[in-house]
Amino acid sequence: MTPAFEPFEKIALIGIGLIGSSIALNVRAHGLARHIAISSRSDGTLRRAEELGLGDSYHGDAAEAVRDADLVILCVPVGACGAVAEAIAPSLRAGAIVSDVGSVKASIVSQMQPHLPDHVHFVPAHPIAGTEQSGPDAGFAELFQNRWCILTPVQPVDEAAIARLRAFWEACGSTVEEMTAEHHDRVLAIVSHLPHLIAYNIVGTAYDMEEVTQSEVVKYSASGFRDFTRLASSDPTMWRDVFLNNRDATLEVLARFSEDLSVLQRAIRDGKGEQLFDTFTKTRAIRREIIEAGQETAKPNFGRNKPPKKWDDESAS
Amino acid sequence: MTPAFEPFEKIALIGIGLIGSSIALNVRAHGLARHIAISSRSDGTLRRAEELGLGDSYHGDAAEAVRDADLVILCVPVGACGAVAEAIAPSLRAGAIVSDVGSVKASIVSQMQPHLPDHVHFVPAHPIAGTEQSGPDAGFAELFQNRWCILTPVQPVDEAAIARLRAFWEACGSTVEEMTAEHHDRVLAIVSHLPHLIAYNIVGTAYDMEEVTQSEVVKYSASGFRDFTRLASSDPTMWRDVFLNNRDATLEVLARFSEDLSVLQRAIRDGKGEQLFDTFTKTRAIRREIIEAGQETAKPNFGRNKPPKKWDDESAS
Repeated sequence: MTPAFEPFEKIALIGIGLIGSSIALNVRAHGLARHIAISSRSDGTLRRAEELGLGDSYHGDAAEAVRDADLVILCVPVGACGAVAEAIAPSLRAGAIVSDVGSVKASIVSQMQPHLPDHVHFVPAHPIAGTEQSGPDAGFAELFQNRWCILTPVQPVDEAAIARLRAFWEACGSTVEEMTAEHHDRVLAIVSHLPHLIAYNIVGTAYDMEEVTQSEVVKYSASGFRDFTRLASSDPTMWRDVFLNNRDATLEVLARFSEDLSVLQRAIRDGKGEQLFDTFTKTRAIRREIIEAGQETAKPNFGRNKPPKKWDDESAS
Repeated sequence: MTPAFEPFEKIALIGIGLIGSSIALNVRAHGLARHIAISSRSDGTLRRAEELGLGDSYHGDAAEAVRDADLVILCVPVGACGAVAEAIAPSLRAGAIVSDVGSVKASIVSQMQPHLPDHVHFVPAHPIAGTEQSGPDAGFAELFQNRWCILTPVQPVDEAAIARLRAFWEACGSTVEEMTAEHHDRVLAIVSHLPHLIAYNIVGTAYDMEEVTQSEVVKYSASGFRDFTRLASSDPTMWRDVFLNNRDATLEVLARFSEDLSVLQRAIRDGKGEQLFDTFTKTRAIRREIIEAGQETAKPNFGRNKPPKKWDDESAS
């Protein structure tokens, strides 16, 4: 059951990609706002959002979309948040909650806060959910279900606004946590930013090999490689902005990763079987915990092993 | 339809983990041999295989299992193949095909070939299929369906034995390729061995972080990290042996990976957005090719986004 939720008058979604469209679908499905205003600076994206019926009004101009909105959520790449905040600031209604969904928080706070008027409540947020796909067609209502959403409140803290935004994300199916923007950025550097960087890198390495053809990489990818291609097909603009805006935390975890990798490299070179075995054993436990926490499927191969139709027919005979 | 296949008299499976048990299930389902002899040096595993009804006879002694077998497949970790070959050699029937399923080929050839008598046909093989799970309970008949199996024939090449083993793997649902053991090891180093090493390493790095708790890593893992935990929960013994036995090829691709990673690291440090964008763009194409080749699901998030039951009930109302 969706908990009782007093709907917002008007939500303005600035940006309508995977996250924006998934929010819109939740607002509609659960009645979280009486009016959904959608803005995109891309005509094509805006038209597509309208074709999909994601909102009640559509605006090329973000400042127009936020007029009279009591909830404004920026769903644009991290690098665009400062400019959007500046553009919408004069049109923001007094008492409005202004939030975002960016994967980096300290940079977003420093980009947006200087532009926002004192009469709005700024509550940065990060729903920990996504897929490798992007654009308004990629959204689906269940995206936030059983996922975490992190709020990183800024001074002056407005408890009522935080409670309201928390209830909004809970109504979307998420569990809400609060932490500082700095801690958020350190946590995400290891759980999200480094994994994406490594995935992009290994796929790039395979792409550039001379001795092994790309067709061989494709054919035999089920032996491990394909797992990395999912993260490595994520939106390039979004991820460029993440690394440019969480530089220090990313470089720090990357340095640790490289250090650890050198240790493994040396163990392989020296034939230290016991050391390799120990390293490969301790990593098993974390997956079990993730599965128990409901953040991952327990099915082998992420559940991709479905037999093809033909095989089903055979075993039925 | 399973192609017409003249069954073997007796298949001996030495080792009955994920791959061995999946082979046994295929032999049974498609009538590929009249008798399945199963051997394991672990009493518990052998008993479990018997409980599961995977074979027709069960043997603690591999030499006993291979007696009268016209097909013998070693399904043990790479590092154990030499000792097994030595143990079974005196009991091998003249004309028998001896094969394996190891993820490394040159080392297996050099381990096994010196022990094998001239009157058997040695055809090393590697089915490119697996999950992160292990043991006789992990097997399933569809594992090899739509996957590749690589044969790396050795001198003297016996075309009839190769054709027979090829037909066997095709009957299990695989498409068969031939290449040299050396080329196999280079290909697998990039598509499988490096990905596993990197996955083990990044999970290890997260495990050792001080500033971020393990509970945070678990909670927020859906943002990327969880993808790596699958490979990093693979069988430690198997993977220790892979790295010890494909050392040079692994170290070579690892050096390239580290070089590429240094370039990305520098781009982040210097704020080179365009370079990051270009790198993150070229990696997208490979996933599309892998999906088109039928080696990966096209569903977002590997299809893990299934809404929970509760949500289904709601949207139905």
